[in-house]
Amino acid sequence: MLTYHIKHNLKIPIYEQLYNFIKQDIINGVLKGGEKLPSKRRLSEHLKVSQITIETAYSQLLAEGYIYSKPRSGYYVEQIIFHGKKTTKKKYQMPKNNQKICKYDFNTNTVDTNCFPFSTWAKFLRLELTEKASKLLLAAPNKGVFVLRQEICRYLSEFRGITVLPEQIVVGAGSEYLLMLIIQILGRNRIYALENPCYPKLRHIFNANNVKIQPISLDKDGLKIDILEKTSASVAYITPSHQFPLGVVMPAARRIKMLKWAENGNYIIEDDYDSEFRYASKPIQAMKELDHFERVIYINTFAKSLAPSLRISYMILPLSLISDYERLCGFYASTVPSFEQYTLARFLQTGSFERHIARIRNIYKLRRDELIKILKQSKLSKHITIYGEEAGLHIMLKLDTHLSEQQMIYLAQKNNVRVQGISDYYISKTEDIPKSTVILGYSGIDEQKMKQAVLNLENAWL
Amino acid sequence: MLTYHIKHNLKIPIYEQLYNFIKQDIINGVLKGGEKLPSKRRLSEHLKVSQITIETAYSQLLAEGYIYSKPRSGYYVEQIIFHGKKTTKKKYQMPKNNQKICKYDFNTNTVDTNCFPFSTWAKFLRLELTEKASKLLLAAPNKGVFVLRQEICRYLSEFRGITVLPEQIVVGAGSEYLLMLIIQILGRNRIYALENPCYPKLRHIFNANNVKIQPISLDKDGLKIDILEKTSASVAYITPSHQFPLGVVMPAARRIKMLKWAENGNYIIEDDYDSEFRYASKPIQAMKELDHFERVIYINTFAKSLAPSLRISYMILPLSLISDYERLCGFYASTVPSFEQYTLARFLQTGSFERHIARIRNIYKLRRDELIKILKQSKLSKHITIYGEEAGLHIMLKLDTHLSEQQMIYLAQKNNVRVQGISDYYISKTEDIPKSTVILGYSGIDEQKMKQAVLNLENAWL
Repeated sequence: MLTYHIKHNLKIPIYEQLYNFIKQDIINGVLKGGEKLPSKRRLSEHLKVSQITIETAYSQLLAEGYIYSKPRSGYYVEQIIFHGKKTTKKKYQMPKNNQKICKYDFNTNTVDTNCFPFSTWAKFLRLELTEKASKLLLAAPNKGVFVLRQEICRYLSEFRGITVLPEQIVVGAGSEYLLMLIIQILGRNRIYALENPCYPKLRHIFNANNVKIQPISLDKDGLKIDILEKTSASVAYITPSHQFPLGVVMPAARRIKMLKWAENGNYIIEDDYDSEFRYASKPIQAMKELDHFERVIYINTFAKSLAPSLRISYMILPLSLISDYERLCGFYASTVPSFEQYTLARFLQTGSFERHIARIRNIYKLRRDELIKILKQSKLSKHITIYGEEAGLHIMLKLDTHLSEQQMIYLAQKNNVRVQGISDYYISKTEDIPKSTVILGYSGIDEQKMKQAVLNLENAWL
Repeated sequence: MLTYHIKHNLKIPIYEQLYNFIKQDIINGVLKGGEKLPSKRRLSEHLKVSQITIETAYSQLLAEGYIYSKPRSGYYVEQIIFHGKKTTKKKYQMPKNNQKICKYDFNTNTVDTNCFPFSTWAKFLRLELTEKASKLLLAAPNKGVFVLRQEICRYLSEFRGITVLPEQIVVGAGSEYLLMLIIQILGRNRIYALENPCYPKLRHIFNANNVKIQPISLDKDGLKIDILEKTSASVAYITPSHQFPLGVVMPAARRIKMLKWAENGNYIIEDDYDSEFRYASKPIQAMKELDHFERVIYINTFAKSLAPSLRISYMILPLSLISDYERLCGFYASTVPSFEQYTLARFLQTGSFERHIARIRNIYKLRRDELIKILKQSKLSKHITIYGEEAGLHIMLKLDTHLSEQQMIYLAQKNNVRVQGISDYYISKTEDIPKSTVILGYSGIDEQKMKQAVLNLENAWL
């Protein structure tokens, strides 16, 4: 007779304890296939639990196929051949993060969350919660909530000179996700030209999606179009407003040439990631503005302008791709919660976004000025060249030194300062990579810390 | 001399109006490459605007590469060859949604948002907002916020018999997104076996990702393993707890055989999408519980149990795949806003989730019972067979009729009732598709509406 030690004071119901005991006995071969189980009445008397309890346990075992019943006979153990004993899991070594945390961090991939208009955002969140209530629970339309797409159109028209329809906008959980969609729309057989250097994640995304990339080097006007034309690439991923990381602004003449290249079956993906942050003049107009032949997929994010945790990006599909999108990707559900979408729509609608941008552009401009001032007043001043400072949230610093880039990064880290080397951004290492050059992002470090950080860099490099 | 009609009362600054006028003249060829622009002083006198305004407009044109400057000479129009005039965009016909909206909707892809514990959720949202404040703005760790992954582990251990580490959990914006990651981790060269019938979106996702699929038919125990073994498929996507849409529960013996199949380099994706909704017994244990060789990727969603708009799903990576994940997909940023992740963590932590599930399981059970009762009391009763009612949020209804499935759907729709045909779920149409069978989802329709809906179905089909 089955004898189990049932505990009456556990959180786990008795039937569940019994179910677990019998199941384990079947799995471990203690109960063999074909063996008859005791009747409910007998087991109930034996274990001093109710027949209902036994019945519930047996039903569950039956539902999961561990036992079977024969009419007018009773329950039997199912023939289950368990191959291999339960292996004791090898103590698994989780991959470690080797990135040393530095007190002074010139990482480019961050924003100052202190700049975020938290009280306004929180107010809008609460308003949405109260006004929309259970409407927030409904799945958003696949391309995103309509009012948000409308607001994005209005913003683009007023501030980027781009006139598009809400139907062309697709909202998604981050530019990385949208890029996965673009690859699915344009196809994996195409070769994608990337600026060299570029944002390193780009090549990881294309690699992870089994798509061939073609690095193209840059000159002072951006992507070298004569080289591009000689390749088989049919899509070019570019950052014309502010090349990342070199800071080049692609002039009108090169843009026109790029658009001409795209006219015959090619596409341009215009990543306008930090167009809001230009200090000397108003933002550079987007290339999409000149896209009369509908060859440009424009992509932008609120991660830089608002907060990384929001995960809201959007793309503009050229009219020529809308039906392909519908056919190939139209079934994907929206990846951004409706709640966030409505809140952002209100943020745009009330002009809060524009005010926020104006305010942080000013904060970051002062911070950039301060960083350059500190550097110029430091002992490093005679040994450095600064460039790429007109826009964006980082500058490049070239050191006149015998130290290699790697040594510079290592010595900075030993002095508690994190800087990024320019060579990380190059796809092919044969390129003419600037010597001993690092990138200093200033969006995540305040003036106070900058001073100490630069002092530490003096110690590290001189 | 350039003559433009500057408006002083517009929202658009004067320099911007001027910039736009000159740019358009360059684009339209009115101003030719090499042509000298008037000096700031002269243009200022001519247009009656300040020299600063002219300078700002020129700077912007310079920054964007429409003009260039010669020292001690002035500004000149850049050589830009604009190919093709601005084409008047063809009136673009947006794809129309042909889905007729029916008053009575037995769609399976919905939940009753009235069942959502909105006030608790809203309270937690507000608490998170107040307590975490700007912490919510920081990007979540790539796999998701740690406390949420911990809570998911606890829930899985208590309610699904699965013991895993938070490091094995990856939170993502919907199961569709997670499936894209799985494809990137396992690779596109594998053939993925799908249950036939299955959720139609699955094949769309695999197709959009250029992955070969292999439909495998089912018997009363689920996927036919003898057929699977004869194919080259090395991954099987299955719904063992409650096959969608047929409702089969895969018994232990078949599960063990599936796991045995997976042992040698194959993988199983276990989609546990509606395991919370089993009415007769406690939820069927997950296959992942028996996965001693680490071959099962478990995937589940909160879209069904909470609300579709939340877009939070998660997967459990087997230990054997963690390093592949880190290498191939570890760089992807989390796709779910931190805010939602913390709120859900609290919802799990406080037991609200379990209470919610218990409550809606009961609501849906009553609703199912009611639907079956209404059907059995209707004039349809003599002509129908109901099956797949033990679990999930839908039943299947087979009609003894000369009408085809298509005719049934069409006639129902004419009577304002939306039902889905079973054949939509079959990948290859050569399968033994049940005749004249439709699916009735009852998660989005209340008792009141059901009565009228069934009356309408009588009119439609009899």
